[in-house]
Amino acid sequence: MGYTVPAGISNRHVHISKEDFEALFGEGVELTNFKDLSQPGQFAANEKVDVVGPRGTLAAVRILGPFRPETQVELCETDCFIAGFPVDIRESGKLDGTPGCKLVGPKGEIEIPQGVMVALRHVHLSTAQAEEAGVKDGDLVGIKFGGPKAVTFENVLIRAGEKHFRDMHLDIDEANAGHIANGQEGVIVK
Amino acid sequence: MGYTVPAGISNRHVHISKEDFEALFGEGVELTNFKDLSQPGQFAANEKVDVVGPRGTLAAVRILGPFRPETQVELCETDCFIAGFPVDIRESGKLDGTPGCKLVGPKGEIEIPQGVMVALRHVHLSTAQAEEAGVKDGDLVGIKFGGPKAVTFENVLIRAGEKHFRDMHLDIDEANAGHIANGQEGVIVK
Repeated sequence: MGYTVPAGISNRHVHISKEDFEALFGEGVELTNFKDLSQPGQFAANEKVDVVGPRGTLAAVRILGPFRPETQVELCETDCFIAGFPVDIRESGKLDGTPGCKLVGPKGEIEIPQGVMVALRHVHLSTAQAEEAGVKDGDLVGIKFGGPKAVTFENVLIRAGEKHFRDMHLDIDEANAGHIANGQEGVIVK
Repeated sequence: MGYTVPAGISNRHVHISKEDFEALFGEGVELTNFKDLSQPGQFAANEKVDVVGPRGTLAAVRILGPFRPETQVELCETDCFIAGFPVDIRESGKLDGTPGCKLVGPKGEIEIPQGVMVALRHVHLSTAQAEEAGVKDGDLVGIKFGGPKAVTFENVLIRAGEKHFRDMHLDIDEANAGHIANGQEGVIVK
């Protein structure tokens, strides 16, 4: 059967810098925890912002915490189409050259010069989990999900280390394409 | 490399009976051809209807012709979520037990008792094309598309015969999940 990883389905979301957050929510305001996420220390916040694109607005997009050095807006391709952003597919965290957008919060609005992307799907594993699975940080693998719309995602990046925990990040397009439920197990195929 | 098939990406659409069409567009009105589709005799019509679900309306959904014995609304899972329909995944043409909906046209509106579905992806091949590919009508195969979000769709049904022509039907979720362009070639993997 092979080593399996649970699907962690991400709706559109925003990672945000402290500076940008304060411009939108007010000085000295802090992110508040709505729920913990699978990766250690990460959480979905109660706070949401509107993401304004050339064609339309994605309303009330949830912020994920903690703060990051740079603000990043992660969308699926369907979202890009709705809001009118070009589709820029890349690894999360690599922002150079991505489109910008307007963000609207309760206390202000800002233009970010870059940061709108479609993040490449990837698998998080702790060091011990990677060893058990027989993969290492930076490997590319396939992950196969079963069911009526069974699908194998190819070229999936393994991110392994002590800050990671067993989880496969999929966006809404990917989950819907495979009729994949949150937590459904996919198997690593090499 | 293997035998390849081009992606034919279907946005949400409606197949319609003559009776239902006349109730929406007026007695004696005919479907008019917007453009021919890949399958012999099939066409996208100029005429569109609104599809009304429990949560929202999908506006101006294109009708595909010619008329069929039963009206059928083909959506992707994202559409089902937007409009509030349960996701009912099945082969196109098998309507029993699917949810119904309201359809609104320029001259009237109707409630259809069933017909809303997420149609399973499938590959059309002529008899000669199927022979060349080494598959037959009813086979299940994988189809692999390359690129940054490379993906293999599994359990894809082969529909082969003289009324078919080389084409793989994908919905918008599937195309966006794999960043697949219309006409992009995928390879059959067995």
